[in-house]
Amino acid sequence: MKDLIRKSVQELHGYVPGEQMADDGIIKLNTNENPYPPAPGVESALRGIDVDSLRRYPNPVSAALLERIAEMHGYAASQVFVGNGSDEVLALCTRAFVEDGGTIGYFDPSYSLYPVLADIRDVDRKPVPLGDDFGWAMPECYGADLFFLTSPNAPTGMLYPKSVIRDFCRGFEGVVVIDEAYVDFASENCMELAGEFDNVLIARSLSKSYSLAGLRVGYAVGPEPLVEALVKLKDSYNLDAVSQALALAALQDVDYMKANVARIRGTRDRLSVALEEKGYTVYPSETNFVWVRPRGIEARELFAELKARRILVRHFEGDRTGEFIRITVGSDAEIDKLLECITMVCK
Amino acid sequence: MKDLIRKSVQELHGYVPGEQMADDGIIKLNTNENPYPPAPGVESALRGIDVDSLRRYPNPVSAALLERIAEMHGYAASQVFVGNGSDEVLALCTRAFVEDGGTIGYFDPSYSLYPVLADIRDVDRKPVPLGDDFGWAMPECYGADLFFLTSPNAPTGMLYPKSVIRDFCRGFEGVVVIDEAYVDFASENCMELAGEFDNVLIARSLSKSYSLAGLRVGYAVGPEPLVEALVKLKDSYNLDAVSQALALAALQDVDYMKANVARIRGTRDRLSVALEEKGYTVYPSETNFVWVRPRGIEARELFAELKARRILVRHFEGDRTGEFIRITVGSDAEIDKLLECITMVCK
Repeated sequence: MKDLIRKSVQELHGYVPGEQMADDGIIKLNTNENPYPPAPGVESALRGIDVDSLRRYPNPVSAALLERIAEMHGYAASQVFVGNGSDEVLALCTRAFVEDGGTIGYFDPSYSLYPVLADIRDVDRKPVPLGDDFGWAMPECYGADLFFLTSPNAPTGMLYPKSVIRDFCRGFEGVVVIDEAYVDFASENCMELAGEFDNVLIARSLSKSYSLAGLRVGYAVGPEPLVEALVKLKDSYNLDAVSQALALAALQDVDYMKANVARIRGTRDRLSVALEEKGYTVYPSETNFVWVRPRGIEARELFAELKARRILVRHFEGDRTGEFIRITVGSDAEIDKLLECITMVCK
Repeated sequence: MKDLIRKSVQELHGYVPGEQMADDGIIKLNTNENPYPPAPGVESALRGIDVDSLRRYPNPVSAALLERIAEMHGYAASQVFVGNGSDEVLALCTRAFVEDGGTIGYFDPSYSLYPVLADIRDVDRKPVPLGDDFGWAMPECYGADLFFLTSPNAPTGMLYPKSVIRDFCRGFEGVVVIDEAYVDFASENCMELAGEFDNVLIARSLSKSYSLAGLRVGYAVGPEPLVEALVKLKDSYNLDAVSQALALAALQDVDYMKANVARIRGTRDRLSVALEEKGYTVYPSETNFVWVRPRGIEARELFAELKARRILVRHFEGDRTGEFIRITVGSDAEIDKLLECITMVCK
């Protein structure tokens, strides 16, 4: 009898999202969510939705969002693609820019979705190990059809120098997707590269800096031919009408986002100093999380002890990552509680 | 220099959605939207959304929706998949159940997205021409990896007998997706087949009968192994938190949906009779649209004349479809206006 399910899918291990515990008592520092609410305009936009209008199909290309994003970054609307979360953008890139039998590259460690996307696309993974301190380490003559370059990187939180990224894009033969999901928390970004090269897309997300993980909106900016390819492959109406309206409201209040980001960066710096004072190794974060090697306790054990005290952080098993934990920068009160628990656990 | 864009994508012609004109004066009978608003509970659910909660990721598998859908149809939650519109469900099926070099089948004419999905998946299309009167016409020994079977069919509105569908599913070696987007308007459905066969998925949509095209929610019901394959391939968080909440509210008021459906069926019958009285050929519709061959005017011309009078219907160019128009069943007032215009145009 014929196999009903494609062989590569039978063998596939799907992506494992960070735990979402339905418990108000939990301090949730495991999935890089923003501790502050979305902009006030998002609430107004939600209250202003005419429910009757939901019987109509939404705008198929999220036209108003395209315009706003283009305006924000100084590009044309035809150079912008809006997706159902930047996850959709990344998945579409694997289908648009990689031939069967091709390869998808990414740094290791980096966003743990990338190898899963390569497996889903049923092409070879071509990971590039980062240097000893998780710094840039690209071998000479490295090639792939598509490279996912997360900057700042997750889970390390580190930003790669723009000059290094620019040189890489110039020399790379395939498409480079610079995944800037966390870039609003960083000191610089690569958006200008979207206009410099014919092989570079910048991916952004509203999940973190705009406090809208629940809404599923991400976007890509870059050369028109690449954007057109994504449009051809997307579902006909990939973004619902409510998400389009609320995302637009959020993007119309960049000042609010930046004020939240400033608070989170302040908390991040305080958290980093406090952990360093405990002898922890803290990597220089340009994101809304910190990547930490604990001292006096195994990372896995610290993860479990914190969880027992109702604080969730993230621990990734694996050779390169097993000694570390990743802590999302929550509110000041949450971080105070975390530091208190760490002191108790490590006493 | 290397091609940046996959060859099959360069050659691809994307799906063309029905026109969405941003003009309140338009009578829009071209995309099978429901003329009546969503259930009152949808409005309450919208007003009840805690905007602060949108900073959190949504439930990755839409768990509450799975439970409700399972309960509605008498299956287990593990036999249900919820997608970002049934478009996502259909697209995932092409990636889950078709090997490279495989084939995707569907009736011709049928939903015009299917050939596009085959092209996107970069496998061969294997259309099956319907009979002269658009009735079931499956050749002996027909085979494909995946068959999209729309019942009732679009754009013809006709329902295939369940016994015929059951026999086809029994003999077919690949996966059959019975696309029941319009089935709430029909006199019977095939949901029981989801439990009878290991190769059958039933796809449903909230876009039409539940008046929620703007929300992008569809689902599939069927054997666990097929559902699991779709889960592995979907984007990590494929449905946003607002869509999950509003869809749940809609599905909790099936009576409201059924009352709207009854009104639309009444209007549909009245429209069919009126058009028949004008000498039009009207196919027996089990959907919220009618498939009509005009008399005394070319279909293309009628389409254009109606559009000039601010009434949008759908005309599909092509050998099998060019002589017909598809008219969505709107409100009684909209259909009165349509009939009035047709009388003027054809005088």
